Amino acid sequence: MPVNLKAPENLLPVAGVRLGTAEAAIKKAGRKDLLLIELAAGSRVAGVFTQNSFAAAPVQVCRQHLASALPIRALLINAGNANAATGNGGLADAQRTSAAVAQALACAASQVLPFSTGVIGQRLPVERMLAAVPRAQAALHAEAWGEAAQAIMTTDTVAKGASRLVETAQGAVTVTGIAKGVGMIHPDMATLLAFVCTDARLTPAATRAAIQHAAARSFNCATVDGDTSTNDSFVLCATAQVGGQDIDVDHSDYAIVLEAISAVSIELAQAIVRDGEGATKFITIEVFDARDAVEARKVALSIAHSPLVKTAMFASDANWGRIVMAVGKAGVEGLHPSTVSLALDEVLLIEGGEPHPQYREELGAAVVAKAEFSIHVGLGRGTARARIWTCDFSYDYVKINAEYRT
Amino acid sequence: MPVNLKAPENLLPVAGVRLGTAEAAIKKAGRKDLLLIELAAGSRVAGVFTQNSFAAAPVQVCRQHLASALPIRALLINAGNANAATGNGGLADAQRTSAAVAQALACAASQVLPFSTGVIGQRLPVERMLAAVPRAQAALHAEAWGEAAQAIMTTDTVAKGASRLVETAQGAVTVTGIAKGVGMIHPDMATLLAFVCTDARLTPAATRAAIQHAAARSFNCATVDGDTSTNDSFVLCATAQVGGQDIDVDHSDYAIVLEAISAVSIELAQAIVRDGEGATKFITIEVFDARDAVEARKVALSIAHSPLVKTAMFASDANWGRIVMAVGKAGVEGLHPSTVSLALDEVLLIEGGEPHPQYREELGAAVVAKAEFSIHVGLGRGTARARIWTCDFSYDYVKINAEYRT
Repeated sequence: MPVNLKAPENLLPVAGVRLGTAEAAIKKAGRKDLLLIELAAGSRVAGVFTQNSFAAAPVQVCRQHLASALPIRALLINAGNANAATGNGGLADAQRTSAAVAQALACAASQVLPFSTGVIGQRLPVERMLAAVPRAQAALHAEAWGEAAQAIMTTDTVAKGASRLVETAQGAVTVTGIAKGVGMIHPDMATLLAFVCTDARLTPAATRAAIQHAAARSFNCATVDGDTSTNDSFVLCATAQVGGQDIDVDHSDYAIVLEAISAVSIELAQAIVRDGEGATKFITIEVFDARDAVEARKVALSIAHSPLVKTAMFASDANWGRIVMAVGKAGVEGLHPSTVSLALDEVLLIEGGEPHPQYREELGAAVVAKAEFSIHVGLGRGTARARIWTCDFSYDYVKINAEYRT
Repeated sequence: MPVNLKAPENLLPVAGVRLGTAEAAIKKAGRKDLLLIELAAGSRVAGVFTQNSFAAAPVQVCRQHLASALPIRALLINAGNANAATGNGGLADAQRTSAAVAQALACAASQVLPFSTGVIGQRLPVERMLAAVPRAQAALHAEAWGEAAQAIMTTDTVAKGASRLVETAQGAVTVTGIAKGVGMIHPDMATLLAFVCTDARLTPAATRAAIQHAAARSFNCATVDGDTSTNDSFVLCATAQVGGQDIDVDHSDYAIVLEAISAVSIELAQAIVRDGEGATKFITIEVFDARDAVEARKVALSIAHSPLVKTAMFASDANWGRIVMAVGKAGVEGLHPSTVSLALDEVLLIEGGEPHPQYREELGAAVVAKAEFSIHVGLGRGTARARIWTCDFSYDYVKINAEYRT
């Protein structure tokens, strides 16, 4: 059961973006599993991709195409097969599907970005995909965001999308995004894909800056299991349909648009954690008073990735010894317990490294019994901070991941 | 159910070592939970301890006492309470129990090493422990290794011990060790403690060298969940009862004794993984052809700690995409898939980064269906290697860790 998450309603269309879905029977028949996104000429596109050494074939092709001179005109996304660990054959498959879209839309193959999510290590059913491309093209529509969010789902239990409408000096700007994934990695099935579009006239440089900013504050703060997918991709498309002036990073409208892009990205990233495999809790980890952001993040991730913390949270057990253990094992050089504080929401458990005299088990238990709460850790050695969203570790996590292929 | 592990029989007594257990009702009544180990005068003792910043009070006291000038004469170990995250009060508690043993044995408090394992964040029941020390002293016996192994258990399902008898130029040398723990960390309950004794006449320097050597090849190669305990302690005691010559690292007998110490330590470390929380599989991960030992170990641990690999192994699913993902996410700079190979026991799955043409799902499935098997990963960029033992991740892992305090 996802934690406080509903399927998106009323996703706002973005001028310059049309979406079409089709059934390609990639993993099985009976569902739309192919999504074509068409972008208006003049759109500016930027992407950030997995750091995994085994980056999937479509990720490699995306990187090539984004580096080429011609602007991106379309995205082709399939669910059911990740086209990862497929060697040179997989690369050729991703190139063939890109070329087919290019032919349909009368552009160059390098103007198409391919994305895949699903099983690792199997070749794409290219012929079925090529046959479905014209059907996806025929279905292209500006209002198809909801169907698009569904088409890219794998083990997701809820479709994920978010919209913002903001006023700028040049007029109203829309930002709409969709995402899929039920954790940072979900090999075989689900990898994180996110597509955010805006009609703002961001320059190419501003588009790249905006995606870096938004990624750092959204998807890079989300973790389900600490495993980094071979296919993670987050793409920002600015169709430049609003206003007449280009918005570079020093334009007065940039901050407004950036805020809307970040807000949509954060909502999508949180949706992924809320729908994390087997999740019953949505947990925010705040680490503050660190020497630098790197060590703050290290401590937050050490807590978020500890199976012992996650199983205790699943049990609604305010087992703070495990949190302290995770802080201590994070590998922060020179960290001394005597400066560390720990709170669950507003309840202080540790101050100056000593158990707080007013703390009673019932106070902590009441916090962790909730579906959403925060863990606050102060390191007492600086002013830097980090925030991570994660979920708990349940029987269903084991069930989902042990039983998927059977 | 532990994987291919039985309680030890016929642990060999070690000249110069006597062991006594007593009931101190530390967590609950009705079991012997206090162990006193008395060492002959002239024994040489070395220890290695947790790297966790929140090192427990007894670990801090052990470090002080091992650094002091007087030789160690006794070890006092309790189960049921870790005396960790207990602030200055916890330090005083560890010092009081050491002092009580010192008084009973007529030595200095700095000649006693205290060890605790169990719940984090609660103060020790010092009065009950002090009352039990004379009973443990009265029970001291050279043949009590089996009872000692039982007294230090927490969530362990099987007592853990191992012995070796080797011939040296100076006569027969015995090495016997006991350990407890069901993973690298087991907060609240079980942390890794291991005590290995030998009657060899190792010099203090050779004792320190031997424990470093043995730790690197045994306990530091074992992981259940990647969480590092606040209390991990591994101690080597050489009672110097055999022969007349001191054995320093350049003595011809050193290699023989070191081999026996390493063998006992490896057997104990493997026992801990075999009894890992919820374990149904014992998995050896071998990474070879790495540029250096650090990156080999990084890749091995990335596989061993991946919840997705561990749940697949629990399901006897040869889901090699998850292993490839874990290799790729290990953060090895410049690692290129085209040089990577992967095998499950003798079955080759990937060679030169491409799926092996002869591989069929049934071949991999037959390997991972076994209770013990190996994962071999070649990085194809050097000659360094690393070996890690781990276990799978089961429903029982979640059950044990979610339900412990309730």
